[in-house]
Amino acid sequence: MSYKSSLKSKLEEADVEVGDLVRISKNGKKYEGVLLPNSSSDETFVLKLDGGYNIGIEESENVILEKVKEGDEKTGQISPTVKGEEGEKEGEVSVLLAGGTIASRVDYRTGAVKPSATEEEFLSFTPEIAEIADIEIREVMQTLSENIQPGDWKKIAEEVKKEIRKGKDGVVVAHGTDTMGYTAAALSFMLEDLSVPVVLVGSQRSSDRGSSDSHQNLVCAIKAATSDIAEVTVCMHGESSDSFCYLHPGTKVRKMHTSRRDAFKTVNGKPIAKVDWETLEVEAIKEDYRRKEKERETKLKNGFSQDVALVKIYPGMDPDALEAQLDGKEAAVLEGTGLGHAPIKNEKIREVLKEYTEGGNIAFMSSQCLYGRINMNVYETGVDLQELGVIGNLHDMLPETAYVKLGWLLGNYDKEKVEELMLKNLRDEISERTKQDQFRR
Amino acid sequence: MSYKSSLKSKLEEADVEVGDLVRISKNGKKYEGVLLPNSSSDETFVLKLDGGYNIGIEESENVILEKVKEGDEKTGQISPTVKGEEGEKEGEVSVLLAGGTIASRVDYRTGAVKPSATEEEFLSFTPEIAEIADIEIREVMQTLSENIQPGDWKKIAEEVKKEIRKGKDGVVVAHGTDTMGYTAAALSFMLEDLSVPVVLVGSQRSSDRGSSDSHQNLVCAIKAATSDIAEVTVCMHGESSDSFCYLHPGTKVRKMHTSRRDAFKTVNGKPIAKVDWETLEVEAIKEDYRRKEKERETKLKNGFSQDVALVKIYPGMDPDALEAQLDGKEAAVLEGTGLGHAPIKNEKIREVLKEYTEGGNIAFMSSQCLYGRINMNVYETGVDLQELGVIGNLHDMLPETAYVKLGWLLGNYDKEKVEELMLKNLRDEISERTKQDQFRR
Repeated sequence: MSYKSSLKSKLEEADVEVGDLVRISKNGKKYEGVLLPNSSSDETFVLKLDGGYNIGIEESENVILEKVKEGDEKTGQISPTVKGEEGEKEGEVSVLLAGGTIASRVDYRTGAVKPSATEEEFLSFTPEIAEIADIEIREVMQTLSENIQPGDWKKIAEEVKKEIRKGKDGVVVAHGTDTMGYTAAALSFMLEDLSVPVVLVGSQRSSDRGSSDSHQNLVCAIKAATSDIAEVTVCMHGESSDSFCYLHPGTKVRKMHTSRRDAFKTVNGKPIAKVDWETLEVEAIKEDYRRKEKERETKLKNGFSQDVALVKIYPGMDPDALEAQLDGKEAAVLEGTGLGHAPIKNEKIREVLKEYTEGGNIAFMSSQCLYGRINMNVYETGVDLQELGVIGNLHDMLPETAYVKLGWLLGNYDKEKVEELMLKNLRDEISERTKQDQFRR
Repeated sequence: MSYKSSLKSKLEEADVEVGDLVRISKNGKKYEGVLLPNSSSDETFVLKLDGGYNIGIEESENVILEKVKEGDEKTGQISPTVKGEEGEKEGEVSVLLAGGTIASRVDYRTGAVKPSATEEEFLSFTPEIAEIADIEIREVMQTLSENIQPGDWKKIAEEVKKEIRKGKDGVVVAHGTDTMGYTAAALSFMLEDLSVPVVLVGSQRSSDRGSSDSHQNLVCAIKAATSDIAEVTVCMHGESSDSFCYLHPGTKVRKMHTSRRDAFKTVNGKPIAKVDWETLEVEAIKEDYRRKEKERETKLKNGFSQDVALVKIYPGMDPDALEAQLDGKEAAVLEGTGLGHAPIKNEKIREVLKEYTEGGNIAFMSSQCLYGRINMNVYETGVDLQELGVIGNLHDMLPETAYVKLGWLLGNYDKEKVEELMLKNLRDEISERTKQDQFRR
């Protein structure tokens, strides 16, 4: 029972528990709906009304509470599987809760946001998703995304695969935004020949705030999950206003702002589609996405080797620290400068890189510019780096995506195969050609 | 002598050397000008004409070469100080060559670009800069910017200060683009109370290519150096077409694309001004820049401590590698996720950070989002990190700028002062408030 003790006596008097269908009368008005939990400090009863909307009714002497029907006996709560009226629904969508702001509640004690929403609470934030599809909500972990580790990627991929095997039309993963780009890349690689949409969604402002983006993002994500876009995408605000969401490709998406609602950007590519907030239409932007085909078998390849490193290159970097970061790692992605450079005029850095590749390890070059392509044939430094064994033809792959891909390759393939596949486009992580309009002004 | 051997005989016959004033007749046309070097493989004599423009005259049987006047006796070449007609000039500008594409020649043997232009060659690329101001060109190093180290920042700052002491109206630093943002930040801190403009300029495509941006960038940089904007700025293409250059603030500029001419962006702020390519007007965008005042004494504070690290945070990062990067460093900037987070659910990472700060070292948090502000009071992880001693109020300072500032502070101030000054806005590296329009769509 999640209500404040001051409200509990009234609930007990009426023999009402969370999940029951109740009627509340106040000042002549009557409300009927399912009682939702309210773990906040305010003295408000929260009802999910029939239309799917929530209402908070402040406690007072005038509030009269009656039980209409008891909730689910087993749990004493409404089921997180909500079925709407027949005929209207666009399919069956599973929502997996991984944690993050979108599945969080504010801790009124510390003021900080904690990943603690239950399935029921989660649904209560945005009940109208049940009008779009038959929704099944399941918590798979409660992890703020800054703490998400490669082991969690494996687990999430596994859980997504389970939902697909159940015959769902799409899977939505509610996830924190901090490392959502990394997870999107990981799922892109771990789920091969994807048969249905897998949509990551998060929010930049928690749902208790007026400016929260969780509502639009989640509704759009559910719509995207019922679409024919069988790709791993990230569904987040396209602009700071509530106008539309973009579906960013999982291997090319990056959180580019700490707090804005439109923080996520497709880097070196275009979003796959947008979901209009007024019409809820999913409008394709790219035409060459993988189409949904439920009969196709999605293969789970969720090995991941942590014997990889992502190393930032910068002026004044300590060669010993470089050596330590590479130590014991079978392969590494360098986040170089410009077209793919490192300060190899420094003898020690040159030596460390040479010894690393000569020791049978693989080093790939990416760029901290983020936008644009690697080209190590233009400058002396690039040519020299290649002579030291550093591999530079990652094209326009993001450093973070390259790191995730590398760990995934090492976790699933023989080492000989790793280099070959690293340079090959597997999940749209590489664009064959860069188009002018992909760089934002 | 830089001409191909096939042309040398003709030069020798006429007793002509690079730097001499010569007359070339070809098919009835006559050209008079100073013979410039031409180290390329084409069979062309290059003349700097009186109006300041260069012309290439292809060798053939019809080419007649005469010496009009001998060049500077000492060097046998034209002087890199070019004085134009009196009255037209907008001041005296020093151009310091540090290296990079803008001061490079293509090595026709390897096809790679090498930093090897002499002062004379440099001027010959864009002779019309001598029409804008009295130009003095001086090479201070020949370093591709991926190899620029903190010691080079100290040296460049020192050389800039020398030019200011000479009474110049502005100083242009020709520099490679890879790490130009880091150098711009370093010069911003190292030159205090700057009295005249200091403009870094580079090019994304070498000057032998038709699409080179070096011409416009350099002319605009010279114009900027004659303006009243006494700030360290980066002058680069504002758009991919030849329309204008932006003057980006030195502490907020970042190379955001590997190859585009408009690769440089002001992050978390606005450019200070633009220089129109047609009118060469310097139009202020910001109003609150420091005005030129030649009597003000620019203070050189170019200490820099390399006991600092810039550490990228990512899912699956190795706690031992984190420890190694912090080892022996007095202070560090973490490039965290989102609002300023790190995976401290990992006990070992938590332990490493705790031991680091408890050992009397200082750790600051920045964000790999690049855009937006740090806020470690919103989420549990941020609050916990602060309890571990990580300092999170760097506002919207770029990770790279924070790293440069930290090394600079440690190189010039007592350790007690470092923390205080790190959080204080010294060179516009911190914006008090972020405006909506600073994040690109």
